[in-house]
Amino acid sequence: MTSLWRQRPVGIVGLGLIGGSLGLDLRASGATVHALVHRQTTAERARERQLADRVDTDPAVLRDCGLIVLALPLDRLLDPDPALVAALPAAAVVTDVGSVKQPVLERWQPWHRRFVASHPMAGTAEAGVEAGVQGLFAGRPWVATPTADTDPEALAAVQTLAEAVGAAWLQCEASAHDRAVALISHMPVLVSAALLQTAEQGGTAAGAGALVRRLASSGFADTSRIGGGNPELGTLMARCNRPAVLQALAHYRQQLAALEGLVESEQWDALQAELGHCQALRPEFL
Amino acid sequence: MTSLWRQRPVGIVGLGLIGGSLGLDLRASGATVHALVHRQTTAERARERQLADRVDTDPAVLRDCGLIVLALPLDRLLDPDPALVAALPAAAVVTDVGSVKQPVLERWQPWHRRFVASHPMAGTAEAGVEAGVQGLFAGRPWVATPTADTDPEALAAVQTLAEAVGAAWLQCEASAHDRAVALISHMPVLVSAALLQTAEQGGTAAGAGALVRRLASSGFADTSRIGGGNPELGTLMARCNRPAVLQALAHYRQQLAALEGLVESEQWDALQAELGHCQALRPEFL
Repeated sequence: MTSLWRQRPVGIVGLGLIGGSLGLDLRASGATVHALVHRQTTAERARERQLADRVDTDPAVLRDCGLIVLALPLDRLLDPDPALVAALPAAAVVTDVGSVKQPVLERWQPWHRRFVASHPMAGTAEAGVEAGVQGLFAGRPWVATPTADTDPEALAAVQTLAEAVGAAWLQCEASAHDRAVALISHMPVLVSAALLQTAEQGGTAAGAGALVRRLASSGFADTSRIGGGNPELGTLMARCNRPAVLQALAHYRQQLAALEGLVESEQWDALQAELGHCQALRPEFL
Repeated sequence: MTSLWRQRPVGIVGLGLIGGSLGLDLRASGATVHALVHRQTTAERARERQLADRVDTDPAVLRDCGLIVLALPLDRLLDPDPALVAALPAAAVVTDVGSVKQPVLERWQPWHRRFVASHPMAGTAEAGVEAGVQGLFAGRPWVATPTADTDPEALAAVQTLAEAVGAAWLQCEASAHDRAVALISHMPVLVSAALLQTAEQGGTAAGAGALVRRLASSGFADTSRIGGGNPELGTLMARCNRPAVLQALAHYRQQLAALEGLVESEQWDALQAELGHCQALRPEFL
C-alpha cells in the first residue's frame, strides 16, 4: 500500500490547519507533496513555510498525484470548484478531512470512484496558512466511513497515510460518526456558547456585569472554551450536521430539564446521585 | 490591622483544601495557627503535614485566637455544631470561606457580632486533609460581602489575612455575589453534567456508545470537566444557592433555545453572528 502514494506525489487541496500540518508531516516522512491553494498570497506564504514541495493555484498541480487529500472547509468541500473536481485524476485515491461524513459521501462518492470519506480528529484554535504544525495527528483518531461502494485498495491507501502521520485509524458508518460528533463536538459548541451569553446577559440583568467577569475562574474558562471558538467552524458544523445536532440538542434539553427539576423539587440525594454518576462517567471520555 | 491577628493565633476550623492551604500559607508567613478538626485521624494527619501549629478535636483549641476562619463545607457551615458556636471567643473576628454568602450571613451574623462573610475563590479538584497546598490563594479573588452591620475593624482584619496569602481582595453585596457565582460556577456545573449524560445516553441510543467515548477529544474534556467534579460540592452549591441557580438555569434555557431556533430555521448568518459575539466576549471572562 505504501507504494501507492510514496512513489507518486501526495496532493493536498487547502493548506490551512489540517492541510498545512499534513504537508509538514508528510514531507518529514519523505513523501513529496503537491498542494493546491485558492489564493496567490496563500501560495507564497505556504512556500515560505515549506508546507509542500510544490504549491500552486492551478489545479494542474495535482496531475501526477496518486493520493489527494481535500483539506477544505466543509462548505467548500460540499460545493467545490468544478475546476477542482475536473482536475482530480480518475486513478488517484481521493479523501477529505471534513468533520461531517454523510453529506460528504453523498456529494463525492458519485463524482469519484476512488473517494474515501475520512476525518482526522485533530485541531487547535488556529486556522489559515500560519496554523499548520508538525505532529498534529500523533495519537489522534483518524476515522474513515467506508460504504459498500468504497474501493478497498483506496481505503487501505488512506489508512497508510493516516498511520504515516501517527494517527490512530478507525472505521465506522458515516451516520454513526455524524451522530457521535454531534454529541461530543458539534452540539457542545452551542451548549458552551449559551453559557457565555447567559453569563453576559444574566450578569447585566443582576447588575453584576463587572463582578461575573472578575469572578469567573478556570472552571468557567474550560466550560466556555469551545463556545468562544471559531464562529465560522461552529456554524458549518451545525449547518452540515443539522439533523444530528438538533437530535443531540433535544436530548440535551431533556437531560438539563431533569437536573433542573431535581433542584426545583429539592431532591438533593437524587441530584447528588446524578452528579456522582457523571463523575464516574467522565474518565470513559478522556 | 496586622497586629490584630499576628499577635494572637489564627484559628482555622476544618483542614480540607481551603483550611489546609490557608494553614500552610499562614504558617509560612510567620503566623501561629490553631486548628479544630472533626476527627482524630484527621488531626493526626494534619499534624504530620504540619498544616497548623496546634491541631485538636476540642473546640477549646480556638480559645486564644484573634481571628477564626470557618473553613467548613457549606452544609456544616449552615448547620454548625453548637459546641463550635459556643467556643468562638466573642472578641474574635470570625469569617467563613463558603461559596454562597446570603444564607451564611443570615445564619451567622446574629450569632457573632464580629462575623465577616467571605469567599476565597480558589480551588483544585482535591478535597480532604491531603488536599491543602501552599500558594493556593495567590492572585485569586477573595470576596467579602459586608452588610451595614459588619464591624469595619473585623472586615479590615479579614482583608489583611486575605492579602497576607496573596489573594486579590474585593467587596460586594451578598446577593450580587450569589447571583454572579450561580452564573459562572454553580449553574455551569449542571450544564456540564447534562452534557456528560447526553453523550452517554445519546451515544447508546445511536448505537455508538463506544464511538462517542473514543472520539471525544480535548474540547469535550474541557466542557465536561466541572460536570464530572465533586458531586457533594455540586449538590451543596445548588442547594445553598437554589434561587439564583434556578434563575440562571431559566436564563440559560432561553439562550440555548434561541441558538437551537437558529439551527432549526437554518438562519446560518444569524448563528454565525451569535457565535462571533461569543468569541469576542470570552476574553472578558478570562
